[in-house]
Amino acid sequence: MAAFDCVIRGGEVFVSQALVRCDIGIRDGRIVALGEHLDAGDEEIDASGRWVLPGGVDAHCHLDQPMSDGAVMADNFETGTRSAVCGGTTTVIPFACQFKGQSVWAAIEDYHQRASQQSYADYAFHLIVSDPTPTVLQDELPRAIAEGYTSFKIYMTYEDMKLNDRQILETLMVAKSAGAIVMVHAENADCIDWLTELLESAGHTTPEYHAKARPSAVEREATHRAITFSELVDVPILIVHVSGAEAIEQIDWARRRGLNIFAETCPQYVFLTSDHLHDPEGCGHKFICSPPPRDQANQKVVWNGLRTGTFQVFSSDHAPFNLDDPKGKALHGKNASFSKIPNGIPGLETRLPLLFSAGVTQGQLSLARFVNLTSTYPARLYGLFPQKGVIAIGADADFAIWDPHATWTIANADLHHAVDYTPYEGITVTGRVTETVIRGRVVQRDGRLLVEKGSGQFLRCHAPDFDLM
Amino acid sequence: MAAFDCVIRGGEVFVSQALVRCDIGIRDGRIVALGEHLDAGDEEIDASGRWVLPGGVDAHCHLDQPMSDGAVMADNFETGTRSAVCGGTTTVIPFACQFKGQSVWAAIEDYHQRASQQSYADYAFHLIVSDPTPTVLQDELPRAIAEGYTSFKIYMTYEDMKLNDRQILETLMVAKSAGAIVMVHAENADCIDWLTELLESAGHTTPEYHAKARPSAVEREATHRAITFSELVDVPILIVHVSGAEAIEQIDWARRRGLNIFAETCPQYVFLTSDHLHDPEGCGHKFICSPPPRDQANQKVVWNGLRTGTFQVFSSDHAPFNLDDPKGKALHGKNASFSKIPNGIPGLETRLPLLFSAGVTQGQLSLARFVNLTSTYPARLYGLFPQKGVIAIGADADFAIWDPHATWTIANADLHHAVDYTPYEGITVTGRVTETVIRGRVVQRDGRLLVEKGSGQFLRCHAPDFDLM
Amino acid sequence: MAAFDCVIRGGEVFVSQALVRCDIGIRDGRIVALGEHLDAGDEEIDASGRWVLPGGVDAHCHLDQPMSDGAVMADNFETGTRSAVCGGTTTVIPFACQFKGQSVWAAIEDYHQRASQQSYADYAFHLIVSDPTPTVLQDELPRAIAEGYTSFKIYMTYEDMKLNDRQILETLMVAKSAGAIVMVHAENADCIDWLTELLESAGHTTPEYHAKARPSAVEREATHRAITFSELVDVPILIVHVSGAEAIEQIDWARRRGLNIFAETCPQYVFLTSDHLHDPEGCGHKFICSPPPRDQANQKVVWNGLRTGTFQVFSSDHAPFNLDDPKGKALHGKNASFSKIPNGIPGLETRLPLLFSAGVTQGQLSLARFVNLTSTYPARLYGLFPQKGVIAIGADADFAIWDPHATWTIANADLHHAVDYTPYEGITVTGRVTETVIRGRVVQRDGRLLVEKGSGQFLRCHAPDFDLM
Amino acid sequence: MAAFDCVIRGGEVFVSQALVRCDIGIRDGRIVALGEHLDAGDEEIDASGRWVLPGGVDAHCHLDQPMSDGAVMADNFETGTRSAVCGGTTTVIPFACQFKGQSVWAAIEDYHQRASQQSYADYAFHLIVSDPTPTVLQDELPRAIAEGYTSFKIYMTYEDMKLNDRQILETLMVAKSAGAIVMVHAENADCIDWLTELLESAGHTTPEYHAKARPSAVEREATHRAITFSELVDVPILIVHVSGAEAIEQIDWARRRGLNIFAETCPQYVFLTSDHLHDPEGCGHKFICSPPPRDQANQKVVWNGLRTGTFQVFSSDHAPFNLDDPKGKALHGKNASFSKIPNGIPGLETRLPLLFSAGVTQGQLSLARFVNLTSTYPARLYGLFPQKGVIAIGADADFAIWDPHATWTIANADLHHAVDYTPYEGITVTGRVTETVIRGRVVQRDGRLLVEKGSGQFLRCHAPDFDLM
Repeated sequence: MAAFDCVIRGGEVFVSQALVRCDIGIRDGRIVALGEHLDAGDEEIDASGRWVLPGGVDAHCHLDQPMSDGAVMADNFETGTRSAVCGGTTTVIPFACQFKGQSVWAAIEDYHQRASQQSYADYAFHLIVSDPTPTVLQDELPRAIAEGYTSFKIYMTYEDMKLNDRQILETLMVAKSAGAIVMVHAENADCIDWLTELLESAGHTTPEYHAKARPSAVEREATHRAITFSELVDVPILIVHVSGAEAIEQIDWARRRGLNIFAETCPQYVFLTSDHLHDPEGCGHKFICSPPPRDQANQKVVWNGLRTGTFQVFSSDHAPFNLDDPKGKALHGKNASFSKIPNGIPGLETRLPLLFSAGVTQGQLSLARFVNLTSTYPARLYGLFPQKGVIAIGADADFAIWDPHATWTIANADLHHAVDYTPYEGITVTGRVTETVIRGRVVQRDGRLLVEKGSGQFLRCHAPDFDLM
Repeated sequence: MAAFDCVIRGGEVFVSQALVRCDIGIRDGRIVALGEHLDAGDEEIDASGRWVLPGGVDAHCHLDQPMSDGAVMADNFETGTRSAVCGGTTTVIPFACQFKGQSVWAAIEDYHQRASQQSYADYAFHLIVSDPTPTVLQDELPRAIAEGYTSFKIYMTYEDMKLNDRQILETLMVAKSAGAIVMVHAENADCIDWLTELLESAGHTTPEYHAKARPSAVEREATHRAITFSELVDVPILIVHVSGAEAIEQIDWARRRGLNIFAETCPQYVFLTSDHLHDPEGCGHKFICSPPPRDQANQKVVWNGLRTGTFQVFSSDHAPFNLDDPKGKALHGKNASFSKIPNGIPGLETRLPLLFSAGVTQGQLSLARFVNLTSTYPARLYGLFPQKGVIAIGADADFAIWDPHATWTIANADLHHAVDYTPYEGITVTGRVTETVIRGRVVQRDGRLLVEKGSGQFLRCHAPDFDLM
Repeated sequence: MAAFDCVIRGGEVFVSQALVRCDIGIRDGRIVALGEHLDAGDEEIDASGRWVLPGGVDAHCHLDQPMSDGAVMADNFETGTRSAVCGGTTTVIPFACQFKGQSVWAAIEDYHQRASQQSYADYAFHLIVSDPTPTVLQDELPRAIAEGYTSFKIYMTYEDMKLNDRQILETLMVAKSAGAIVMVHAENADCIDWLTELLESAGHTTPEYHAKARPSAVEREATHRAITFSELVDVPILIVHVSGAEAIEQIDWARRRGLNIFAETCPQYVFLTSDHLHDPEGCGHKFICSPPPRDQANQKVVWNGLRTGTFQVFSSDHAPFNLDDPKGKALHGKNASFSKIPNGIPGLETRLPLLFSAGVTQGQLSLARFVNLTSTYPARLYGLFPQKGVIAIGADADFAIWDPHATWTIANADLHHAVDYTPYEGITVTGRVTETVIRGRVVQRDGRLLVEKGSGQFLRCHAPDFDLM
Repeated sequence: MAAFDCVIRGGEVFVSQALVRCDIGIRDGRIVALGEHLDAGDEEIDASGRWVLPGGVDAHCHLDQPMSDGAVMADNFETGTRSAVCGGTTTVIPFACQFKGQSVWAAIEDYHQRASQQSYADYAFHLIVSDPTPTVLQDELPRAIAEGYTSFKIYMTYEDMKLNDRQILETLMVAKSAGAIVMVHAENADCIDWLTELLESAGHTTPEYHAKARPSAVEREATHRAITFSELVDVPILIVHVSGAEAIEQIDWARRRGLNIFAETCPQYVFLTSDHLHDPEGCGHKFICSPPPRDQANQKVVWNGLRTGTFQVFSSDHAPFNLDDPKGKALHGKNASFSKIPNGIPGLETRLPLLFSAGVTQGQLSLARFVNLTSTYPARLYGLFPQKGVIAIGADADFAIWDPHATWTIANADLHHAVDYTPYEGITVTGRVTETVIRGRVVQRDGRLLVEKGSGQFLRCHAPDFDLM
C-alpha cells in the first residue's frame, strides 16, 4: 500500500506567507505530510513549474436564490459551483435567504434541497435575516448558530429585505451572545428611493442613472451607521462589497478608534467603473449591481485598501442574471428603468484570475495578501479554518494549482457558468488555475470537469475568528 | 540511518496562521518534513502539550556597541545572545555603527570581530550610517548591500549620529537604487536640545525630565518629516521604536495615502509609562530610553496599532547599561542630569514572554499577529525569509517551544543577560519558552544553555520584502 | 425738539469687532447716529464705564409649548421673555410646533395667540415640522416661508416628533427651493429606545442612566446622517445643541469637504457634565436634557469649537419644567424612570452672563466671537439682520449694557423666570447686564422691569444668510 | 465752521458685517460720526450708488528690498504704494529685512530711509529675522517690539535667509515673551535644493520645473514642522502664502487640536496654476514665485479655506521684478535655469479687485469675509486695529469706495506699479475702487493720484490680537 492516497509533487507550495518547494502527501482527503521527496502515492500529480495555493473560498455569492420580484438566477448550485471550481475556488458560501414571514429553518431546508447532490465545491450557508421576529431572534438564530450557520447577512436597503435600525441592533445582539458574524449591505434605502424617484420623474431611466441613484454618500452614510451599531452593541461586523473611498474612510476611521470592523470588496470595484453603465450600445444593464462601480480614483483607493489592510475579504458577489431573459436582466423589458433591472453580475470563475493578474503578477499585491483575501481570511472569519483556507497538516487537501505565467483572455464562451455574459469579457490576464483539487481529488483540469456533480460537501461553520491580524 | 537528524513530535505547530498538531522532521539543520506520525529521528524532542512557534527574530538590539561618550554596554555578543535564546529568540540583528569619519567597511569588520565565535543566536547586521560622504553613498553602501547588509539605520537626533535632511534624502536614494530598507530614529534634535537646556537651566535634571525634554510632538514632527522624505524619494522606510498616538497618527495618515511606511514598536511602549521615570527612590534612570515611554492612553493606541496593522515589527531595542556602573547609567555620576545618562534599557529575553502574555494569553492579539510581529515580518522585511521566521519545508529549523500555560514572574536574577536590572522586574506573565532550537539543535532548555557560545552563524540579508500584507 | 429720542452716552460701544468710545443717537426705535459728543436726546442714558453690546438673540428656546405627554412648561411668553430681557437678550425665537395631523398654520396661529400681548422681548418663530404631508410640503411651508417663518426644526428622535429619512430629505428640498434653514435635532431614535429598554429592564432607571441611554455615538451617527442628507439635497443645515467631540468631529469633517453645515451649542455643554445627573440627593432630574451633558474632555472640545469656528450659534435651549410639579419634572412621580422625565432645563437669563464670564472675562473667547455667537450670527442665519444683532445706523436700538467687572453669583431666587430652579445655582460670574434696551426703550435696569408685558413685537424673518464667515 | 472736515454721503457703508446706508463724518482724519443726514462738511464726497468699505491692508508685500543676489525690485515705496492705493489699499506692511551679520536696527533705519517721504499709503514694517544672534534675540528684538515693530517673518528656505530649527524656536520664544507675531515661510530648504539639483542635472531647467522642485509635500512638511515649534513654545504663528490642500490639511488639523495657527493665502493660489509656468512662448518666468501656484483642485481647497476660516489674511506677496531686466527676472540671462530666476510676482493693485470679483460678486465669499481677509483681520493680527481696518467712530478715515457693478479688464498698461507686466493680464472683473480715502483725504479717484507722494505715514504696531474669531 502506498504511503499516501495522492502526492502532489514538485510544486512551489504556499505555506506561511512563503512559496516553498515541497511535496504534499494526502490521505483520506486531508493533508498528512509536507516534505522533500515524499514517498509515492496511489495517485501522483506533477506540479513542477507551478504554484500550489490553498483553494479559493468565495464567501459572497448567490446561487439559485429565489427573488421576490420573480426574477430567476441563471446559475443553480450545479452550474455555479462548476464555474467556481474551474476558477480555482473550492469552497463557496452562498446565502440561505429568509423571506419576511418565513422561518429561518424553512429557508435553510429549502437551500439544502437546492444544493443537495448538485455542488462541485464544498459549501456552507450564510443566513439572510429579513424578518427578525422575537422567535427568530430568541430561538431560531441561536439554534442555527449552534448547528453551523454562524454568519448572518442583513440589508439596509431593498424593500423586501431591509431591517430598520432597531432590528439591526437586535440582530447584532444575537450575534454577540450566540457567536455569529453579521455581514452588512450598507446603503441608505430612503435616500436611494428618493433619488430614484427624482431621476425617474425627470425621465432619467437608462442604466447610467443606477449609479446616480446610489452615490457614494449613500453608502458612506449607511456604513457609518452600521459602525455605530457595532460600537453600541460591542460586536464585530463586516461591511460587504465596499465600493470606494468614502466608505473606506469610515471603516479606517473606525479601526483607528479600536473598533472591530471588517470589510469586503469585489472585482467590480477594481475592474469596472460607472462608465460601463453608460453603454452606447444599450448594454449598460450588464453592469448593474449595488453598490455600483465608481471611478478610477475610487479604484485606486480600493487597491490601497486591499494592500494595506482595510479589506480582509475579496469575494465575487456572484449574482447571475441572463441579459435578454424575461426572467433575468430583462424582467421588465429591455427598456425598463434602471430601478427595475435585477441587480447583480456574475463573477465566481473570474474572481481569482482577475485579482491574481492585476495584483500579484503586476506587483500591486503580495502573494500572501492575495491568499489571505481570497482564501485564508474568509475561512477564518466564517469559522471554516483550519479545515479550509490553508495548506497545513490536517487541513482538507483543497488546492488551486496555478500556472503563474499563463496569459489568456477572458471570454464568456470559455467560462462554465450558465450566464450569457461576463462583465470582464476581453480582459487579458496572466495566471491560470490549471487544476483544482478538493479533498485530494482533482475536480477540474484545464477546464474539464473530472468528477460528478454532487461531490461537494456541506460544511458546518464554527464560531467566527475575529483575530485575523 | 534514521530518516531525520531530529524529530519534534506531538506539538501544536504554528504554520500558516494556524496551530496544527504535527511532527517536524529535521535534517542538516533544515525542516524537511511536516506530517502526522513521522518516522523516527536520531534525536527526538517531545513537544506534546506545547506550542512550537518559529524562533523569534529580534530586529533591533544593540550589543557591544562602542559609544562615543565612553559608556560601555553591559552585554557583548555572548551575554546578549545568551539572553536572547533563553527568551525564545533565535536570530538577532544588532547594529554595525559607522562613526563619523569612519568607513562603513571598517565598522562592519569591527563588528564581525566582536561577534565572531561569541554568539548563541544566528545574527545579521544593520548598518548605522552616520557619515554619508560621497564615497559612502556611491561606493561603500551599494557594495555593502550586495554583500548582505541590506538595512541602514539613520538618526534624526543624537549629536554624534544625526543626519541632516539633505543627507537623509541622499541615503534614501541609495536605498532605493541599490535595494535596502532604511530604519529611522525619528525625533527632532534641535527641539530636544532646546528643551533640555530650558529644563536644565531651570534646575530640572532628574530622570522624569527626560520625558519632558522629548515630548510626543518632537517624535511626531520627525516622523512626519521622515515620511515626507520617503514620499519624495519614493522609497519605503521603517520608523523604529514608535512610542505613541501622535507618531501613529502620522504613520496611519501616510498609509491611507498609499505610502509604504512601516513601523516598529517595543515593549517599553506597552509595558512602561513615563511615571516609571519619576521614581521616588532615585531609580528613574533605569527607564531612560528614547523616545521615552508615554502614558496609559498612548499604550492603548500602541496596542490598537499592534492589533490592526500599524506595526509590522515588535523589537526589544535592547541597549544594556548597568545601573551603578561608571561606564553605564552612572557614567557622569549618580546625580548627573538626565541628559548625561546613557539611553537604553535591556529587553532581549523578556520581549517575547511579555507580548505573548499580554497579547496572546489575554486575548489582545491573535497568535498569528504575535508571530508576524516578532518573527515572520522582521524576517521578511530584512531579507532573511523564508530561511528564518517561518515553519516551512526548507526553512532553518529554528523554534521557540512554548508552554502556553506556564505562569511565572520576571526577575532579573533569572535572566541571562549581563545587565544588573530589568525594567520589567516583578511582572507576572503566562507563557514560557521551555526550549529554543536553532538549525535543529536545542540551544537552551528551561534556561540552561546546551551549546557552546559561537554556535550562532552570521547571516547575509537579501533584498527587503516590502509586500508584507 | 431734541435731536434724538434717546442718547446712550459715554459707553464703550461694540461695532465691527471693536469696542470704541462713542455715543449712540436713537430716533423712532432705530439707531440714527454714532459719534463723539452727540447732541442731547430727550432721554439720556449714561453708559460710562460700561460696554454697550448688541442685545442678545436667543435662537433656541421653548415657551408655553404644549407637550404631547401632558407636561406643562413653567414659562409662558410673559415669564420667559421677562427672564430673557433681564439676562440681556432682546430677541427670542421660540418654536411653533406642528403636531402630527395638524396644519402648520394652526400651529402658527396657536403660538401667536400664546405670545400676543405677553412678550417683553421681540420674537420670531421657528416652525417644528413633525408631519410633512404633501400639503405641508407643497403648500403650507412655502407659504409660511413667504410670510416670514423661514426656519424649520426637525427631530430625528422623540416618538411624537421624529421624521424618517425620506421625510427629512423632502423637508430639506422645500427649504432649498423656498429659502429656509433647517435645524436638526440629531440623535438616533432607535438606538435610544433600544438602550433605554436594556437599561430599564436591568433596573437602571435613575437620572444618570439618561446619559447612558443617549451616548455620544448616538448623536454622532445622527449628525453624520443629517450631514449626508444636506449633501445629497445640496442645502445648508444647522445641527442644534451639539454636545461634544464626536458630533463636532463630523461637523468639522463636513466643513473641510466644503459642505455648509452650521452648528449650535448651549450652556449645558460647557457648564454641566453628566456627573450632575448622578446626584446623591436625588436631584439628577434637574439636569435631564437631550443630548445630555458629557464630560470635561468634551467640554474642552466644545470650547475649542466655540473659539475656532465650528459653532455659529450659542443658544439656551430653554425648556422649563418645575421640579416637584406633577405637570413638570415629576410628571410620572418623583421616582419615575429617567425616560419618563420631561426633557429640558431653563437657561434664558443665564446664557449671556455664563458665556461672557467664562469666555470673555477669562480670555477663552474674544468679545467679537461672543457677540457673533450670541447675537449677530443668529440674527444673520435666521434672517433678522441687520435689523437685529448689530449696532449700526438703521438697526433697531437693541442693547445689552454690561458692567464687565461686576462679579455676582447665580441664584434662582434672583432670576425672573417662573421655574423653581436653575441648573447653574451657585456659579459665580464676572460681567452683568445692568440695562437692556429694546428699540430705544430701557426694558430693565438692575433686574427691575421698566415696561409692561406685551411691548415685545413679532418679527417676520427674511431668507437665511448662509455666508456667515 | 462746518461740523466736519469731510462728509461721505449717501453710500452703503460696511459696518459690523452689514452694508448700511449712512453718512460718515470726518474730522482731523478720523471718523467722528456715522449717521443718517449728517450736517455738512467742508468737503463732501458723494458715494451714492457705491459701497464704502474699510481701506485695504496689504500685510505682505516687498518694496525696494535689496536682494543678496543683486536683483533690484521694480517698485520702490513711491511706485508700489501708488499702485496699492489705486487698488483700494490704504495701509501696506512691507518688510525691513535683516541680512546676516546686520543689526536689526540697521535694517529698520535703512527701510525708514527708503520709505520716508515716498509713500502714498500709510505703512508699518514687519522685520525679517535672518540672523538671530544672542544680541538680536535678547536685546534688539524686544526693543524693536517695544517701539512698534511687532511682527517678524522667518524663512525655512532660501540660503541667505533661512533659520535652522533651533533658531526658529529661539525666535518664537522672543515673540512669546515680548508680544510679537511670527510669520513663517514654510518650505523645506534641503528638499528643494536636492530636487533642484536632480532636475538641473537631468537638464530640466525651464520654468515649469520650478514647481516640480517645490512640490506640495515640501511645503506641507515645513508647515507641520512650524506648527510643532508653535506648539512646543506655546505661541501663535502665521503661515504665509499657503498654496494648497496639503498645507491646509496640516493647518486645519492643528486648529482642531486647539493650536493657534493662523494662515495667509494670496491671489496667485486662487487665480494661477502651475500650468502658467509651462508657457510655450517662454514667459513662464513671469509666474515664478514660491511656493508655486498648484492646480485647480488645490485652488478649490484654498477657496474653501477662505470661506470657512482656515485663512485669516489675504495678501498680495507683491515682489516685483521686470521681465527682461538684467536686474530683474533676467538676472542670469533669459535662458537661466528656473533656480536662478528671482522669485516673486507683482500684485498690490490687483489683490482687492480679483478677490472681490471672484469672491463677493460671484457669491463664493460673503462681503464680511472679504473685508475681514483683506483689511480687518490683518489690522487686528498686526496690531493696527481699530485705528485701521474698520469703519468705526475714532478709527482713521481710510476707505475704499467701490462701484460694485463696474466691469473691467485687467491690463498692465492701466496699472500704477513700475513693473512691466501683471500675471493677471486680461482677466475681467466686476467691482472697481473708484476712490481711495486715507485719513479723510481722497488720494486717488478713477486712477488719478490726487495727493503728493510722502503723504503716507509710518505706523507703529501694537501687540498682535490673536482672538480674531
